[in-house]
Amino acid sequence: MSQQRMRVLITGAGGRIGTTLALHLRDRYALRLHYHHAPPNPPVDDVVTGDVSDFAAMQRAVTGVDAVVHLAADPRTTAPWDSVLPNNIIGTYNVFEAARQAGVRKIVFASTNHVMGMYDRDHQWPVYSHLPVRPDSLYGVSKAFGEALGRYYADRYGISVICLRIGWFLSEPHDEISRWMWLSPRDCVQIVWRALESPLPFGIFYAISNNSGRHWDITDAMELLGYRPEDDAERFFTDTAEPAPDAS
Amino acid sequence: MSQQRMRVLITGAGGRIGTTLALHLRDRYALRLHYHHAPPNPPVDDVVTGDVSDFAAMQRAVTGVDAVVHLAADPRTTAPWDSVLPNNIIGTYNVFEAARQAGVRKIVFASTNHVMGMYDRDHQWPVYSHLPVRPDSLYGVSKAFGEALGRYYADRYGISVICLRIGWFLSEPHDEISRWMWLSPRDCVQIVWRALESPLPFGIFYAISNNSGRHWDITDAMELLGYRPEDDAERFFTDTAEPAPDAS
Repeated sequence: MSQQRMRVLITGAGGRIGTTLALHLRDRYALRLHYHHAPPNPPVDDVVTGDVSDFAAMQRAVTGVDAVVHLAADPRTTAPWDSVLPNNIIGTYNVFEAARQAGVRKIVFASTNHVMGMYDRDHQWPVYSHLPVRPDSLYGVSKAFGEALGRYYADRYGISVICLRIGWFLSEPHDEISRWMWLSPRDCVQIVWRALESPLPFGIFYAISNNSGRHWDITDAMELLGYRPEDDAERFFTDTAEPAPDAS
Repeated sequence: MSQQRMRVLITGAGGRIGTTLALHLRDRYALRLHYHHAPPNPPVDDVVTGDVSDFAAMQRAVTGVDAVVHLAADPRTTAPWDSVLPNNIIGTYNVFEAARQAGVRKIVFASTNHVMGMYDRDHQWPVYSHLPVRPDSLYGVSKAFGEALGRYYADRYGISVICLRIGWFLSEPHDEISRWMWLSPRDCVQIVWRALESPLPFGIFYAISNNSGRHWDITDAMELLGYRPEDDAERFFTDTAEPAPDAS
């Protein structure tokens, strides 16, 4: 880290992941938080509001930051086109383009396992991040669009773009699905700062914890980002397991 | 072919490729041609007009057809977002969704080499169709979106979707670039009917002629679609070559 802290905008900071990132990254970076509607007591003072489909609002949001963590989206796998189009497709273009115009050199894009969800439906495992996309929803299609757009901005403009295919962000796994796709809060925080501080020109990585039962490859995230996940969902399911460190 | 000819809609039939396909496929299929603005003397009687960004117009266009060849798009690699969004992104969603609602079972999607153009910029050859996308333009990004959408419609709804990454459609190659990426008119016609009559659930294929100097893999197109290209750009560049069959 340089003496001057990196100035990082988080879009969609009011969501579940954004809330966690804001609390755990506000000491590491000079954070600006973007909300659709600002909360009464935001975790930092530097707050912007606006709709991601409003390009001028996104221009204001990115002014003066070094990096963007782009979370804002309609995250529902059932989201209809009328929402996916403005919130996920137009919104992501607006954030990338506004960031480029403002000289931002790093974007961490919150992608999703749903870009590849049809491999999971068919139990075609393991899934590697470089396989052809097989989205399971318009939401997944919109995130595949965002990854392709990110690749273009990386190749064309030299912006470092890291796409994180986030598994299932939960405080604790609770069923067979979350047993293999869990992303713990602290592992989420770690992989985001690893991505922010990575010199890679571009990358797409699965963002899940070190779950023994996982079906998605995290080798590249460990090798190329230096990601060292601390959690494994398995300890919540194994009767003989040691008590969890935080459950004493 | 069944006794009843397949009813095929071609969108963007006024473009260079659409014009060629209409003339050479009108005997093989019962064609309907979609135009933005209809020409005075269309090659078939069944003509529809409308903007692809108008969902209701696309609903009318697909009614009663068995298959769609979706060509309509802004094909400029310099196309700005303001055009790519309605013409290529919204337009492609509209055509796919209208087709699904109308019970269409086959879509041939005109994709492009520009989905992978950054491999070419960096001379990272050969390029295989299953490699991660590296678009070279917003146009290329929009076609990557269309491929991802097509994969979703194939996986989710069982519509057979064949994406053809069209090289450079020209009557004759004329320079070093077209020497390796040429798609001759008759090879274009062939690969489109091969795609229309293919039982594959989904596929992405390079659509170029059998150019000796090619950098893009057409093995899958030959193996899986049965594509048998008849032309090789090389004959236009080799002094000792036989005269072209059509140049006697």
